[in-house]
This record gives sequence, structure tokens and C-alpha cells, in this order.
Amino acid sequence: MAPATTRPPDLDQDLACDTPHSPDPTTIEALRSRLLGAASVEAVADVFKLLSDPTRVRLVDALSHGERCVCDLAAVVGLSESAISHQLRLLRAARLVRVRRAGRLAFYSLDDHHVVGLLHDTRKHVEEGGA
Amino acid sequence: MAPATTRPPDLDQDLACDTPHSPDPTTIEALRSRLLGAASVEAVADVFKLLSDPTRVRLVDALSHGERCVCDLAAVVGLSESAISHQLRLLRAARLVRVRRAGRLAFYSLDDHHVVGLLHDTRKHVEEGGA
Repeated sequence: MAPATTRPPDLDQDLACDTPHSPDPTTIEALRSRLLGAASVEAVADVFKLLSDPTRVRLVDALSHGERCVCDLAAVVGLSESAISHQLRLLRAARLVRVRRAGRLAFYSLDDHHVVGLLHDTRKHVEEGGA
Repeated sequence: MAPATTRPPDLDQDLACDTPHSPDPTTIEALRSRLLGAASVEAVADVFKLLSDPTRVRLVDALSHGERCVCDLAAVVGLSESAISHQLRLLRAARLVRVRRAGRLAFYSLDDHHVVGLLHDTRKHVEEGGA
């Protein structure tokens, strides 16, 4: 009897070239010159790592609809203001969100349009896969 | 003597409203109704988690310039074909990359334009911060 599988069978094997071949050095060098440098790769991976937490995804999602204060964010996400503040501080340190003072209130927003695009693309990717 | 600080002083404190206030329930409910559901939040966080690995960032970066076989990717990234195949299998399972057979060769590419946009936005965010 065949064992139960939880994903398409072709994912259980490595798909590589049947005939291993030596890559063309000129092509490889040309591609390498267009790639992210080591520091940028680490920085990009760090941004993804920060966003790999569901609570932080919720906060970025909420802020993608406009700026909010900690009190509102805590109510929306259903966590304490102190827990939300802690996550916002991490997101601010990575420049994913920023804060502005308005009298006695403090409003958080996404730092730039790239952060909005980042969440939008990931959301679309997930939704189109039927998640 | 003031202690040395490695980041802006305002990041060392939580910035919240000076006068905590009860959020308006109607506003909170309206925002909640527009947010990602629990399953989507988890799926989005999982995509970010997968991309939080520098080697996988390198592979997605390389593939953002066009499809490549494992032999080429191994040469570009500087790892063994077996190590690259392992990472590609994880990326395929999350539908971030796909593979097509062409005779005895197997070419990998990014699964959709959202994956390209995702890397592009994160790269821009990092670069604009001077990383």
C-alpha cells in the first residue's frame, strides 16, 4: 500500500539537471555582479525575520489602512498596550513603522510605501495559493 | 557622564498616548473587518519566515533576474548542488519558486510577480535606510 502523502509527490524529490554541467563562468560572473551584496542580503533577511511573527504581521496589516495610536492597535489586535508597544519598538528599530506626536497622543504609521507593497505582495501570493 | 547609546534615544522608550483612552468600538470593528484572517496572518508570517534565511534570499535574488538550473545557482551562490536543491525544495513547497523540465535540464524560476515585488520592496526599504 502506498504511504499517505501530504504534498505533491514531485516535491519529495530534488529536481535537478539529469546531466550535471559546468556553468559558463562569464554568465555566472555577469549574474553575480547584479546580485545583492552580503550586507544587503543579511539586512533583507533580517526584515523578513522581523515580519515572521504573526502579531507583527497583524500590526503592519492594521497600519496599512492608516495611522493608529497604541490604544487603538491594542484593541484591534486584542493584546495589552504594553505588548503592542514592545512590538512597535522592534518595528520602529527596523524602520518599518514610525511614530508622530500630536498633543497628548502618539500615532504610528508604516514608514514608507515599500512596507505597504511588501505586505500586499505577500498577502496576494498567499491568497492566490488558496491559503 | 551620559552612557553611550547605539540608537536614537527615543527608541529606548515606548511612545504611547499620554492620556490612555478607550477606542471607539465602531471604528475598531470597522478596521477589524478589513484585516487579514487568522489563517492568512499565519500563512503570511510563514512566507516571511522562509525568506528570513540569507541563502534563500540569495536564491530568490538570483532568480529575480531570470530562470536558472541548479548547476548555475550552485555556482552563483557558492554552495553545493545538494545544498541548493534542499533550499529550492523548501521554496517550491511554499510556491515561491517553480521548476520546469527542458530535456535533461531543470530550470527554476520565481512562481509569480508577487515574489519579485516582495524582494524588490524589501531591497528598496533596506537600501533607502543606508544598510
